[in-house]
Amino acid sequence: MWAELLPVGRDPAGGYRRFAFTPPELECRAWFAEQARRRALPVERDANGNLFAWWLPPDGRRGGAVLTGSHLDSVPGGGAFDGPLGVVSAFAAIDALRARGAVPSRPVGVAAFAEEEGARFGVACLGSRLLTGTIDPDRARGLRDGSGRSFAAVLAEHGLDPALIGPDDDLLGRCACFVELHIEQGRGLDVPVGAASAIVPHGRWRFGFTGAGDHAGTTALADRRDPMLPFARTVLAARSAAERFGAVATVGKAEIVPGGVNAIPSSVTAWLDARGPVDDAVRRTVAEVARAARDAASAHGVAVDVAEESYSPAVAFRRELLDRIIRVLGGVPVLPTGAGHDAGVLAARLPTAMLFVRNPTGVSHAPAEHAEPSDVAAGVAALTAVLADLAGA
Amino acid sequence: MWAELLPVGRDPAGGYRRFAFTPPELECRAWFAEQARRRALPVERDANGNLFAWWLPPDGRRGGAVLTGSHLDSVPGGGAFDGPLGVVSAFAAIDALRARGAVPSRPVGVAAFAEEEGARFGVACLGSRLLTGTIDPDRARGLRDGSGRSFAAVLAEHGLDPALIGPDDDLLGRCACFVELHIEQGRGLDVPVGAASAIVPHGRWRFGFTGAGDHAGTTALADRRDPMLPFARTVLAARSAAERFGAVATVGKAEIVPGGVNAIPSSVTAWLDARGPVDDAVRRTVAEVARAARDAASAHGVAVDVAEESYSPAVAFRRELLDRIIRVLGGVPVLPTGAGHDAGVLAARLPTAMLFVRNPTGVSHAPAEHAEPSDVAAGVAALTAVLADLAGA
Repeated sequence: MWAELLPVGRDPAGGYRRFAFTPPELECRAWFAEQARRRALPVERDANGNLFAWWLPPDGRRGGAVLTGSHLDSVPGGGAFDGPLGVVSAFAAIDALRARGAVPSRPVGVAAFAEEEGARFGVACLGSRLLTGTIDPDRARGLRDGSGRSFAAVLAEHGLDPALIGPDDDLLGRCACFVELHIEQGRGLDVPVGAASAIVPHGRWRFGFTGAGDHAGTTALADRRDPMLPFARTVLAARSAAERFGAVATVGKAEIVPGGVNAIPSSVTAWLDARGPVDDAVRRTVAEVARAARDAASAHGVAVDVAEESYSPAVAFRRELLDRIIRVLGGVPVLPTGAGHDAGVLAARLPTAMLFVRNPTGVSHAPAEHAEPSDVAAGVAALTAVLADLAGA
Repeated sequence: MWAELLPVGRDPAGGYRRFAFTPPELECRAWFAEQARRRALPVERDANGNLFAWWLPPDGRRGGAVLTGSHLDSVPGGGAFDGPLGVVSAFAAIDALRARGAVPSRPVGVAAFAEEEGARFGVACLGSRLLTGTIDPDRARGLRDGSGRSFAAVLAEHGLDPALIGPDDDLLGRCACFVELHIEQGRGLDVPVGAASAIVPHGRWRFGFTGAGDHAGTTALADRRDPMLPFARTVLAARSAAERFGAVATVGKAEIVPGGVNAIPSSVTAWLDARGPVDDAVRRTVAEVARAARDAASAHGVAVDVAEESYSPAVAFRRELLDRIIRVLGGVPVLPTGAGHDAGVLAARLPTAMLFVRNPTGVSHAPAEHAEPSDVAAGVAALTAVLADLAGA
């Protein structure tokens, strides 16, 4: 099952590039459908483009479901495990339960949420946000990818009606809880499997600097309105503000227009990712970066526009579900995560928990992301035990 | 003639995008061939991909030619005039001479040099550098464009033998001088037409920063090797070093890998364009920027590699030719230029001069680049007079 997914969407620059609704991610979706077909699990695609494969109990009841799964999309140059590990483990856990003759008393759903990374349309967990109603459908419809195509147009192209996206209370009402298995993304685990206590607050902000394009040789320094200069100050301010407020802040993406060696840029757009242990640390960090960006822009005659693309406040997972999982697994370490997840979004509507599989190097969102096969097997075994308990299988 | 060229290679982001040997530039080349055909001027494409249309004297002699022209390629988001104005004006000047029944006693050549901007393969004036032997053909063959295609492969694709590129003493031996008409790229002219005294020294340097890609949320600040930080320091150092040494320095292009919002980049490659009134100002500026880049990279555990992609020392145009032009035009302002030109490269082998047409805003390498029609007409009239004098027409 894993071997079939590994060749899909290799990034020529290393790792994977599986952006939502692009050919490699569509191939992952076809793989999902094929896995469900082989197991005779009916597949449901919701109005928001999320996929669900259902293992129904003999009485055919659809309510009170135990949902598991993760996502299939990736960041550019992403690793093999972030996302797919949770989906593959979910199918593997169902296989393990069936192999021992277990029969669930509630439905078990395997989910693959759309655009979790936000790598194409800029908003992370877009599919689960729409499902739970934590993003305005109008805003989502208008999101555009790097080539200017709207989310609405892309949905329509793939047979989804953009008018119908948004919260789905029927689907959520059928679910009793959600358990997401994911590779750990730091070095917080020194045993194969752990559970999440919380997701730290995190968000993305877009900084648009607009100056005046001109010739790099013939324009005097004093006549320039070069947006690259306040952009550079902003990158440095992000680091120093994060240090000051105990947060982390990253500028990992920037678009320079027109991008000629011998031309002063007319505009630079940069994205800030900021996270911290508490909301206040993140808010103060971003406020200080925005202030530095405005000061530097003003000093260079450049206009700046700061927009919050997404913000996810701290999520503390439901204690009762976590305690039950710890009991089932005979005690596992509990740790918070600095990474955002669909589980964090669904936590607003459902009892939600996460299982983590050890990441020996802590590297993630990069080709070197890795989990040992024995740790992956331990993760599947843990998920199997948790699903057996929750679904009465 | 101008109207046929205007729609070719519009950049969706504004201005023009006519990179060497890409479809829009090939369309410009077809336009050149068509202009020559309409005037019954034989066209010669040299081994380096430069184009020449020849107006031969009645005796058919090929030596002692007066060469004029410019280039047809553009920077990304470039203006309409930078390059094409010199080629269009050359054909227009021949039309003007013929209209008054003039017959040249020497050949008049209209040149369109390849890859003047260096926007595709990174070395400005590549066609004229190869022709004059100021770049090693092996190095030129190995230059790669943004998609990784080599100059050798692109030449071969367009029917040129990459083994044959390099200096062409036969062609240069047939030329007595070169006069390039170009739009002024600063605000140095307050009359329609001027002439160049010199081209200031200028060059391009590539800074490659290699860190370690990782997750933007789960990687502690202290564990990061983020190449974006020394890159930002380098951008700021370029400005302050240029101020200190009386030069200009610009970072107009950078490539961030992988470029995900929630991923620390693994590498950033940036290009520095630096120019100054004297070589020493440029050399000192670049040395200081390189030092700042190395210091900042080292402070962040990032590797840095600095490579000189091209350097053009100061060019002072030949005084006798300039004096003759000033005499023919009845006195015009003489000014140096901060922009590089094929004329600066050819000056190493031929008496060379430049005519400038006023640029009312000084904007260049940007969509807003503009020359007034009356100034363009004055430029054509000036070039016509100069060619008449030099070619005995």
